[in-house]
Amino acid sequence: MIPQKNVVVVGAGFGGLQAVKKLSKNKSLRITLIDRTNHHLFAPLLYQVATATLSPADIAIPARNLTRKKRNVTVLMDNVVSIDKEKNLVICNEKTVSYDYLILAMGSKTGYFGKNEWEKYTYGLKDLSDALRIRKKILTSFEEAEKNPERSRELLNYVIIGGGPTGVELAGSIAELSRHIFRNEFRNIDTANCKVTLIEAGSRLLSAFDEKLSEYTRKSLEERGVNIILNTKVENIEENKVYIPQGILHTDLIIWAAGVEPVPIVKNLNVPLDRQNRVIVNQFCTLENFPNIFVIGDMAHFEENGKPLPGISPVAMQQGRYAASSIFNDIKGIKNQPFKYTDKGIMATIGRKDAIAEKDPLKLKGFTGWLAWLFVHLWYQVGFKNKVSILVTWMWSYLTFGASARLIQSPIDSDQKEVH
Amino acid sequence: MIPQKNVVVVGAGFGGLQAVKKLSKNKSLRITLIDRTNHHLFAPLLYQVATATLSPADIAIPARNLTRKKRNVTVLMDNVVSIDKEKNLVICNEKTVSYDYLILAMGSKTGYFGKNEWEKYTYGLKDLSDALRIRKKILTSFEEAEKNPERSRELLNYVIIGGGPTGVELAGSIAELSRHIFRNEFRNIDTANCKVTLIEAGSRLLSAFDEKLSEYTRKSLEERGVNIILNTKVENIEENKVYIPQGILHTDLIIWAAGVEPVPIVKNLNVPLDRQNRVIVNQFCTLENFPNIFVIGDMAHFEENGKPLPGISPVAMQQGRYAASSIFNDIKGIKNQPFKYTDKGIMATIGRKDAIAEKDPLKLKGFTGWLAWLFVHLWYQVGFKNKVSILVTWMWSYLTFGASARLIQSPIDSDQKEVH
Repeated sequence: MIPQKNVVVVGAGFGGLQAVKKLSKNKSLRITLIDRTNHHLFAPLLYQVATATLSPADIAIPARNLTRKKRNVTVLMDNVVSIDKEKNLVICNEKTVSYDYLILAMGSKTGYFGKNEWEKYTYGLKDLSDALRIRKKILTSFEEAEKNPERSRELLNYVIIGGGPTGVELAGSIAELSRHIFRNEFRNIDTANCKVTLIEAGSRLLSAFDEKLSEYTRKSLEERGVNIILNTKVENIEENKVYIPQGILHTDLIIWAAGVEPVPIVKNLNVPLDRQNRVIVNQFCTLENFPNIFVIGDMAHFEENGKPLPGISPVAMQQGRYAASSIFNDIKGIKNQPFKYTDKGIMATIGRKDAIAEKDPLKLKGFTGWLAWLFVHLWYQVGFKNKVSILVTWMWSYLTFGASARLIQSPIDSDQKEVH
Repeated sequence: MIPQKNVVVVGAGFGGLQAVKKLSKNKSLRITLIDRTNHHLFAPLLYQVATATLSPADIAIPARNLTRKKRNVTVLMDNVVSIDKEKNLVICNEKTVSYDYLILAMGSKTGYFGKNEWEKYTYGLKDLSDALRIRKKILTSFEEAEKNPERSRELLNYVIIGGGPTGVELAGSIAELSRHIFRNEFRNIDTANCKVTLIEAGSRLLSAFDEKLSEYTRKSLEERGVNIILNTKVENIEENKVYIPQGILHTDLIIWAAGVEPVPIVKNLNVPLDRQNRVIVNQFCTLENFPNIFVIGDMAHFEENGKPLPGISPVAMQQGRYAASSIFNDIKGIKNQPFKYTDKGIMATIGRKDAIAEKDPLKLKGFTGWLAWLFVHLWYQVGFKNKVSILVTWMWSYLTFGASARLIQSPIDSDQKEVH
């Protein structure tokens, strides 16, 4: 009889979930999936929750539910505190779990390049509670402006730092919310007077894309009314204030979309990290000297052609499946092949019916780009929820500007109540 | 030219919204709708959000969106502090609005019969944030039990106080969640061991219904595993402890469904109140001496056949439409007829495919009762959202136990973050 092996997967994101899905097919394995939330999150659409287009239920599903039919998978909602690599233990807040194989796929968190004091003045966007905080802040600002129209220019004024996909998508969505969706819902203010400023340190938006697409994005966002400031480094952030060389921007909402960094636990792993604190893994996605520990996705630095692979979902998903195969091979005593990334291209939305997509040699923009974006996202979204109804709901809310996503969940006089 | 009149409606519940809908047809009126939340709530389904069957977006929609095409309606999200009846002013936290006609439809809040110190130990269920707090508490208790199976009996133990519709519906839903929905999602615990205790001071559940239906409900809930304690008054509540004559019940979750009371503002109105602090109105739903101030719905005591009308949505809706008609009549100089309630019957669900409904001489129970319940709720739900898609989504999530409602929105280690 084959002895039963324990595999622990930490993180129910794209990488972890793909690993679990594949691993669960081998019934001799006992798999434990650990996550600090109770759900898998379709993170590429998080900005739509933040900007009140989709609801949390549209983009998240309990990990427990996704694995309910996989009887060899146990899900634990816990926070990993450290890893004992010698004793093969994952130590969590409440539980300690032992493993024969470990897959770390914990993703990234909002990163401030060492300026951690900026965190308390800004809103990051990495999980549902982040998105709900931004949503509440934006919706409340419009409510306040309707009551105090004389202050509307000051209230409807948002600054987004970082011209990567998250910054671009947020800027485009907020502009759309104010100029189209809200246009007929307010009586005392002209919602189109809302000001969205997008600050980017580099010389162009979406620097991972072709220059022409960056330029297209800039024009597209400007047409939507977004104020774009390029080549500008933020010098300091204080409460409601962003300091740039050109002066001080005053705003009630500063969204930080300028960077992510791996979860803090990487520092306790005692393994080599790159400059961005990502764990440097070998060509098998494992730690040197610990061939049973895989590190995948956003928290890993996997070098290909002299560059680390980007922190995007296709990388994490392919690595997740690769880690599962590697474990199968190891059990069977088959020598493993190095991981090879198959480029799936990159894409970003600018607004409704407007997106860019790039996969050499293909470059799409505008409505064609948006259709590509929609197709890919619906494909994965549906694949992950495996329900036709989701497609209907999601397309419906997205295309009709479904109003139900625009809820302020707590009443105006109950800020003291703890609500989640 | 007819001088433009200002109507202020406070409360975007069933009563207020019906009033606004009707009033808005008279273009000579300027209507202001004030609510402390930004949404209309389909409150009869709130227990389904609390028990993780539906999501907030399924049962709430921004009031602003519902009135977007009614150009003579302005919506303000504000908290009414007092009414100046002599100067015709509604004084809110931020705004003061003057009126020619005023409709107060602010509903009720969780009431503790003077035992206000119990509030901090119990969970009420009157708004979305209440429902999300209960949902989080229930879902977290199952997650904790999965990590600590030896403590599962202690963790999966809920006490509900009050055997009215809310208590019955919550008890039935929690029992269903644990015995059916969660059955295949946990590995270390038998979720069916969860204990739900329902305490009622009176001799039967759902005392507004016929005795036979009460008895049917009791049996039905007991078959679902609910522990029912009748004829039992709660003597005291402390943190995680409910004192009853039979002893002390220990539990991490005490839900208070034993009563509601009008919003506190009624005490500042300087008008006669009944024993439950409801505003006593005359046969025109107005205050004596103030024929331009209507008080409707849960906050009003309207006497019919020697008894006040119950605090249910059909009463509020009919009074809302009546108030609007009365204002139309007053403007035209037509003498008004007293308000007359058309009985629509009462209903309550016990569980999936099981409900009771009563409208003299009709008494329905079981699957037939449930179909009646479903029909009425879908009818109003759809009517209010006016979208076929809602029917699809809602039926889908309700009938398939849609997993997306089972989200814990905040990660395990971020309890300090303010999230809504």
